[in-house]
Amino acid sequence: MYHEIEYRVPYADTDQMGVVYYANYLEYFERGRTEMLRSGGLPYGELERLGIFLPVAEAHCRYLRSAHYDDLLTIRSFLMECKGVRMTVGNEVRRGDELLVAGHVVLVSVNAARKVVRIPAELAEKCQQFIWCPESVK
Amino acid sequence: MYHEIEYRVPYADTDQMGVVYYANYLEYFERGRTEMLRSGGLPYGELERLGIFLPVAEAHCRYLRSAHYDDLLTIRSFLMECKGVRMTVGNEVRRGDELLVAGHVVLVSVNAARKVVRIPAELAEKCQQFIWCPESVK
Amino acid sequence: MYHEIEYRVPYADTDQMGVVYYANYLEYFERGRTEMLRSGGLPYGELERLGIFLPVAEAHCRYLRSAHYDDLLTIRSFLMECKGVRMTVGNEVRRGDELLVAGHVVLVSVNAARKVVRIPAELAEKCQQFIWCPESVK
Amino acid sequence: MYHEIEYRVPYADTDQMGVVYYANYLEYFERGRTEMLRSGGLPYGELERLGIFLPVAEAHCRYLRSAHYDDLLTIRSFLMECKGVRMTVGNEVRRGDELLVAGHVVLVSVNAARKVVRIPAELAEKCQQFIWCPESVK
Repeated sequence: MYHEIEYRVPYADTDQMGVVYYANYLEYFERGRTEMLRSGGLPYGELERLGIFLPVAEAHCRYLRSAHYDDLLTIRSFLMECKGVRMTVGNEVRRGDELLVAGHVVLVSVNAARKVVRIPAELAEKCQQFIWCPESVK
Repeated sequence: MYHEIEYRVPYADTDQMGVVYYANYLEYFERGRTEMLRSGGLPYGELERLGIFLPVAEAHCRYLRSAHYDDLLTIRSFLMECKGVRMTVGNEVRRGDELLVAGHVVLVSVNAARKVVRIPAELAEKCQQFIWCPESVK
Repeated sequence: MYHEIEYRVPYADTDQMGVVYYANYLEYFERGRTEMLRSGGLPYGELERLGIFLPVAEAHCRYLRSAHYDDLLTIRSFLMECKGVRMTVGNEVRRGDELLVAGHVVLVSVNAARKVVRIPAELAEKCQQFIWCPESVK
Repeated sequence: MYHEIEYRVPYADTDQMGVVYYANYLEYFERGRTEMLRSGGLPYGELERLGIFLPVAEAHCRYLRSAHYDDLLTIRSFLMECKGVRMTVGNEVRRGDELLVAGHVVLVSVNAARKVVRIPAELAEKCQQFIWCPESVK
């Protein structure tokens, strides 16, 4: 099942086309997956204290419709894959029923020495509940 | 042939992992393609005054190595495809010889009423010189 | 009486010193005053639809302590002055009881033609409830 | 004498009012003072390697005119005061002859343990050349 948070678009995120600037959605994705991890019982900050970091190896984003100033968006996050050293987290941004942006990021598990290591079993287990397959990739 | 600009990484772009935060590269891509268009003789601002806007429909980014504070980066931009209403612009970010990030964005041509329209012939022609195929996608 | 919202610090807002980058607090201030206006019954978006814009004429910020990744901050907003064409909104950012940052911005009321105009009476009235004087300026 | 750099405004920096969002000027100030320090022979990155950090204690900004997309701005930086543990760096942002934004930040010298320490004599000396008093504060 997916995880969702709400986010109110500030002026700071808009550009002169009157819409949310495209790079900001990657920040929205981060806000979403952070709360997904927290909700799963393993906040990202705690992971870092345990010596596990999850830098982004890939990011993909499709922009279907524009978000505007003061929109109350829903940022959906879900687990698409978690295997070996990688974890793929999907995201969808909606305004009400409208799907605005869909994307995913591939995270790689590294230790404090920035060496690639397996996704900790505890993390993998706690994220299983967020496995979900979006309409947008079916 | 590709187009290149230099960019100095400010503190503002870094995060607590001590590297450039991943969303910022999409801003770097924008800086790169803006200067590519200007260099081709058709600055993006002029396009907008002519009633043509190029919102981003897709963005893809692979993060191979990290950029750090005060790095002097080279942002390479090139045309991967320009057909009908779409234009795909590729980007590579380097520190010296090291390829750090590779990606591309798909731009869609719309008019002032946000209706999708063909890429103006003048734009397509002026960008032909920047057709280039990166090692990273061969 | 002041108005308060909560805000969770994303990775995006941190810098390599491991703290929130100083410019981001001005975005926090914006988030705060936007919700103060909404709570007063006159959302900023509605003001713009009525042809009133409130660009920032001055911003002042004192950084007392650092905010960190994943901190749950409280952003306090309050009205310091509202007279003629100007409105001064104060802000304080706290983590629990700790005051981290204090500042204020001066907003100027302009119409759609960017001509300076008096603060609309309705706006001034609805904001009276948020008049408050912070310890930090006493 | 002051120090100056040029900066081209990207779409990323604009907001839906069609101007540069107010928080971004603090990033411009950072870009300016970084290059001022480098030009003085003591790059900020080197300072950090020597165990000296210069977090911002105060920031002040007056917005006189708006900057727009694709403007080629001049960011002027200069030393207003350097005494004890503090250093005040002034900034002005211009488009051609027009002064758009004026401000200053107070930096505090801290060591790696985040203990406040005197501004290193070498830093103070190398910055003397950038002492300058702007019209805007006379």
